[in-house]
Amino acid sequence: MDKIIIEARVNELAPRDENKNVPFLPSEIVRDAKACFDEGASILHYHGRSADGTPEHAAEFYLETNAGIRDLCPILIHPTLGYVAHDADAMGRFAAVEEMMKHPSTAPDFAPMDVGSVNVDWWNPSDNSYDTTNLIYKNSTETLMHFADRIKHHGLKQYLVSWNVSFTRQIEAFMKMGVIPEPAYVCFCLTDGIMLAGHPGTPEGLDAHTVFLPKDRNIIWTVVNYKGNLLLLTEKIIKQGGHISIGLGDYPYTEFGEPTNAEIIAKVVEQARALGREPATVEETRQILQMGEVRVAA
Amino acid sequence: MDKIIIEARVNELAPRDENKNVPFLPSEIVRDAKACFDEGASILHYHGRSADGTPEHAAEFYLETNAGIRDLCPILIHPTLGYVAHDADAMGRFAAVEEMMKHPSTAPDFAPMDVGSVNVDWWNPSDNSYDTTNLIYKNSTETLMHFADRIKHHGLKQYLVSWNVSFTRQIEAFMKMGVIPEPAYVCFCLTDGIMLAGHPGTPEGLDAHTVFLPKDRNIIWTVVNYKGNLLLLTEKIIKQGGHISIGLGDYPYTEFGEPTNAEIIAKVVEQARALGREPATVEETRQILQMGEVRVAA
Repeated sequence: MDKIIIEARVNELAPRDENKNVPFLPSEIVRDAKACFDEGASILHYHGRSADGTPEHAAEFYLETNAGIRDLCPILIHPTLGYVAHDADAMGRFAAVEEMMKHPSTAPDFAPMDVGSVNVDWWNPSDNSYDTTNLIYKNSTETLMHFADRIKHHGLKQYLVSWNVSFTRQIEAFMKMGVIPEPAYVCFCLTDGIMLAGHPGTPEGLDAHTVFLPKDRNIIWTVVNYKGNLLLLTEKIIKQGGHISIGLGDYPYTEFGEPTNAEIIAKVVEQARALGREPATVEETRQILQMGEVRVAA
Repeated sequence: MDKIIIEARVNELAPRDENKNVPFLPSEIVRDAKACFDEGASILHYHGRSADGTPEHAAEFYLETNAGIRDLCPILIHPTLGYVAHDADAMGRFAAVEEMMKHPSTAPDFAPMDVGSVNVDWWNPSDNSYDTTNLIYKNSTETLMHFADRIKHHGLKQYLVSWNVSFTRQIEAFMKMGVIPEPAYVCFCLTDGIMLAGHPGTPEGLDAHTVFLPKDRNIIWTVVNYKGNLLLLTEKIIKQGGHISIGLGDYPYTEFGEPTNAEIIAKVVEQARALGREPATVEETRQILQMGEVRVAA
């Protein structure tokens, strides 16, 4: 079977209360990038964080982190546009990527497009209540077309995220329009625990995504379980030919004590190999996703 | 098997270019309400429209229409809050219902809650392009809790709409909170053709909804195919114990020439009876959904 693309999702907006190994600052993210690369991850996804863990949208954070990663290893870089924590207009949300594109040492390889809108309030399962009540993750069609235009301009690869069937249908529409080129790389963002916005992190939750992939399109898919244990589903994903995006950003994995991101990657690699799929190297990942040459301004 | 609840969705924002029988004005909606009731519908859903078909949010439209319906028949009334055509704040979107609640002759029986947010841009299948690019149907958790509070205050029944799995998970969360009482009446809004926001109007599209209904909750479900032919799916819905919401508001049904809403209702009733389910009367519908006494201010 095909090689498997393993992406390390090292921090998101996760706290350190359950696992202190969540990286916040650039040096911590760079360290984890190298460690995950050494274990077999070919893509790194991270969010800018300040020392106290709050979101950091400043371009400088991303420039420093990307440059640090490029110094150490060739792992492909997939930065965030800030999620709902960065509720700016389309240009504002893409501004940090524009800065990153000014020099080869800071340019990423992917830029994300969450292809739809969805309520993303935080659920409190112990209280049966919402901790927030006004978080709508808004990605209008116009905003997405702007992102697609800038991603194309820079020669980056679209990292497409689908939270539910409505997102996948908009991905299909964008493919018909030529806004999303093939092969498309689509991440199914399952959610569990304190986040109910996606399909649940169950076989049914995944099946209710894959059944709607358009048969006549070249789509390569990966799976996240945001706030849930993706390892409960990795065997199924590996066997079905999917790819895996995992890390302490999504879930603390305290089932294994207090693991590092690299230790989680190592577990996935071990399972994939046991099931007959070798982890894709950076170069193999670039070939599978047919990634072109990034165009930096400098 | 249980009686089947049939709801007539007479107009939505549908044009008359393919079927001139779409009712716009109060007198036209009242006429269709009676005709659909006579064929076996127990719920009527309609949108305020002006003579040229544009959306009409004025409370007077709803007062006149509801009073006209109440004069002719006891069909249960389910008005709109204006959908994305009425992008006001929560209070503003509920204002017409507040006016309707001032007198028994104008009070409705249901008020809708679309339990989530989703992109609802109009797709043009012949051009492969979007006709709009900024339509996000925004229903924040806070707004929905306001609607639930006012619905409870007035003794109305919640008409819950799920466009995708994320909506159903928020419905489950609200049930755990007590914001949505049992039995919950949930409409799965499938979509086709020029609207890609919901699951497709296929067996897979419906199954990807029903599989996520929480097993431990009392939920009664109905199905719409907004902009698609629901009759392709009614046999499956009837056999699975679901209910049916259908009409010219969703689809012109030109497969049958230029049918009226009542003629579409008659087709569903005939099919349901052939499969062993009698249409629920208004009183039976009230019993199935455990609807209480509406509390009018006057």
